[in-house]
Amino acid sequence: MQNDTICAVSTASGMGAIAIIRISGAQAIDISDSIFSSVKKDFSLKNAKGYSVHYGNIVNDSGEVIDEVLLTLFRAPNSFTGEDSVEIACHGSLFIQQEILKLLLSKGCRMATHGEFTQRAFSNGKMDLSQAEAIADLIASQSRASHRLAMNQMRGGFSSEIVQLRDRLLTFTSLVELELDFSDHEELEFADRTELMDLANEIEVKIGKLKRSFGVGNAIKNGVPVSIIGETNAGKSTLLNYLLKEEKAIVSDIHGTTRDVIEDTIQLNGVLFRFIDTAGLRETTDTIENLGIERSFQMMDKASIILWLIDSTQPVGHLEKMISTIATRLEGKRYMMIFNKMDQIDEQKKEMLKSYYQPFDCEKLFISAKLQENTELLEDQLFKLAQLPEVGENDVMVTNMRHYEVLKNAHEAILRVMEGLEQGISGDFLSQDIRECLHYLGEITGEITTDEVLGNIFKKFCIGK
Amino acid sequence: MQNDTICAVSTASGMGAIAIIRISGAQAIDISDSIFSSVKKDFSLKNAKGYSVHYGNIVNDSGEVIDEVLLTLFRAPNSFTGEDSVEIACHGSLFIQQEILKLLLSKGCRMATHGEFTQRAFSNGKMDLSQAEAIADLIASQSRASHRLAMNQMRGGFSSEIVQLRDRLLTFTSLVELELDFSDHEELEFADRTELMDLANEIEVKIGKLKRSFGVGNAIKNGVPVSIIGETNAGKSTLLNYLLKEEKAIVSDIHGTTRDVIEDTIQLNGVLFRFIDTAGLRETTDTIENLGIERSFQMMDKASIILWLIDSTQPVGHLEKMISTIATRLEGKRYMMIFNKMDQIDEQKKEMLKSYYQPFDCEKLFISAKLQENTELLEDQLFKLAQLPEVGENDVMVTNMRHYEVLKNAHEAILRVMEGLEQGISGDFLSQDIRECLHYLGEITGEITTDEVLGNIFKKFCIGK
Repeated sequence: MQNDTICAVSTASGMGAIAIIRISGAQAIDISDSIFSSVKKDFSLKNAKGYSVHYGNIVNDSGEVIDEVLLTLFRAPNSFTGEDSVEIACHGSLFIQQEILKLLLSKGCRMATHGEFTQRAFSNGKMDLSQAEAIADLIASQSRASHRLAMNQMRGGFSSEIVQLRDRLLTFTSLVELELDFSDHEELEFADRTELMDLANEIEVKIGKLKRSFGVGNAIKNGVPVSIIGETNAGKSTLLNYLLKEEKAIVSDIHGTTRDVIEDTIQLNGVLFRFIDTAGLRETTDTIENLGIERSFQMMDKASIILWLIDSTQPVGHLEKMISTIATRLEGKRYMMIFNKMDQIDEQKKEMLKSYYQPFDCEKLFISAKLQENTELLEDQLFKLAQLPEVGENDVMVTNMRHYEVLKNAHEAILRVMEGLEQGISGDFLSQDIRECLHYLGEITGEITTDEVLGNIFKKFCIGK
Repeated sequence: MQNDTICAVSTASGMGAIAIIRISGAQAIDISDSIFSSVKKDFSLKNAKGYSVHYGNIVNDSGEVIDEVLLTLFRAPNSFTGEDSVEIACHGSLFIQQEILKLLLSKGCRMATHGEFTQRAFSNGKMDLSQAEAIADLIASQSRASHRLAMNQMRGGFSSEIVQLRDRLLTFTSLVELELDFSDHEELEFADRTELMDLANEIEVKIGKLKRSFGVGNAIKNGVPVSIIGETNAGKSTLLNYLLKEEKAIVSDIHGTTRDVIEDTIQLNGVLFRFIDTAGLRETTDTIENLGIERSFQMMDKASIILWLIDSTQPVGHLEKMISTIATRLEGKRYMMIFNKMDQIDEQKKEMLKSYYQPFDCEKLFISAKLQENTELLEDQLFKLAQLPEVGENDVMVTNMRHYEVLKNAHEAILRVMEGLEQGISGDFLSQDIRECLHYLGEITGEITTDEVLGNIFKKFCIGK
């Protein structure tokens, strides 16, 4: 039932000073009124205006005070969901959160499912589907760039343009299909083929560009995968700790306990890098260890960027047996060579290393991970290797796998439309390709959806959103 | 500086649909206004009323939108802290939370310290100290009983009564001290000794009762410590898992991810039980293992309730060598004997066990932890052993160690006053004892505090409260 009344805790789970319980649906105000006792005499929520805040107690049926709360009331359609809604700000004890939820359930609310508040906002026309999806991305955003992309998408992004292109294409379909009704008169062309070709071109350019933006958009959203490879004692974990720790220090300075979340990612100039763990390389005859090294090589394939860490203190050429294997794996990748422990070698050794590794055409940097010498330079180079464009304030990119898949399908369909137009195929075939393109374009913004698609989208949301 | 402007995230840390950032202080409204852009034209927070909600964007200096938010404004003194305050409800991304905090800091806010919002509420006379302390207890409350006690304390609890008794005692001191000014006239008695004795009696009864309530209050707040002892294979962990799992299932049904918090505690009829982990007992000559068993015995001393679990399938009397040691440890404790694996023995064995363990004068229960037979009976018995009274809706108990210590001191002082009155000691000695009592009573409600006391109290709060 669409308009039954749902409730959920909307703040992060756990204990905090404040928690927010959100209620939405036809009975939201009546139910809230039945458990709320204002400090004001003869007060009823039923008479309160939208966007109003009230101080009072949540009281159970036996008159016991569960908590002192602030209650904010929203009236349809001026709420997040577009329905009557209430937000209760209570003390952040788990016990209190549970007691209030239990009380709401006993009064006829039901627990919201994942993303159900947002799904209702979508159903009530408060936002289109791609905007709804952007909310989940916004909440999960960890870097400036991914935050910007999610924010731009939430505020309209590419969807308004797609809706407009789709509407224009829809007009043409109607005309083409009208021709079919008059199929006796083959000379009749209601839909101007040149104009249709122009529109198809416009659509192809637009969605082709969007489709291609996914590579970058996805890297921005999920982080650029980086792999550090190197011998067992090259200093991989010192370097990784340095890179990760700095970030953690900055973040925890400002927010407290965020360590769990950022685990093995760092942000450089607003770009997220995700480190893929690999075992240290070393020449060995041990089968099991060789398996580990083989796995390391496989992990390299998942990375877009490889940092090849070399222990400068080892004899030049000590990796001789392994070097061709590594070289094969580096082909087509962005990578750089990092000579660690620079503080323990002299200039002559440096020159020898440079000359030995000269065949590798890449940036070569001498650092000391331990003493943190040149480590900032390393970060700059890493950022450059990512080759991610700066995300402008209004830049739009596809970051969502579903959008990418749908855009790919729409793109193929519009290419078929263009091909058909060139070959002058008959109206009924043309119409079929256009219909397919319309279908996919509609799926992006949610003008066309199935329960299954919606289910898949919203199950990834948290409860309370 | 008391009135500088502080900010903090007030919701639980981590990712959620919504997070609340709280701002309080002289500049709260001006600073919020400088980063808030309403959807309404020509809108300024500076002109907005208290208790009003506004929808708009948080915008940084370069005009970039950080988030779409709901902002609630409170004007002094009608706010939690008593100061001008703003609450920003933003999307619950860590990145957004951090960006908004950074923006606020750049505009002149500083990060709030632990409990600083509540400390300001106390300083501004919005609540007394014992009420402020109750807020921390309320947030941490895990059971109905501890929630009720915290709620009653937050809503006034014993503090108004103490303030009133203290005021009356203060009047007497003034009179007694006035006598000292007229010490030439020994016959003068401004303070009626009989009335003073009556008041002292009243105070003694009141704070004596409060002091004694700490035993129960503390058990309610922190949980009744329970220890399950038994041989290695008696089924201790099956039983413990049964007790814990049931609780977890109930809680996680309603709230999601609360498992971490309730770890080794369960709630029975609203009372919290805390399980103390002990190693299994067994007869051994192994020194290290004996150390473990010795530690188990020591842990027993920390428990108020002992559940002695016995494997019914073992030969009767198999614990013979250990039994006297156990018996000594059980002295003065509340305990019961649980014969596990009842499904694997016959009636005759049951009788033999009962008769063998007859010298232990306690409840004896046959159960199967695995098949969950009689386990509910066990829970009932455990609840009975706790001997905790039902907490009534308006019951007041001392749950706070600081209050207990201060009450103990006040109680000793008032007893000295009474003794002095009986012995007819001189006014200056009497006055000294009364002053001491006044001092301690004042410390409870915060009429008398030192920075150190305040510091100790509020450092236990979370940031954002």
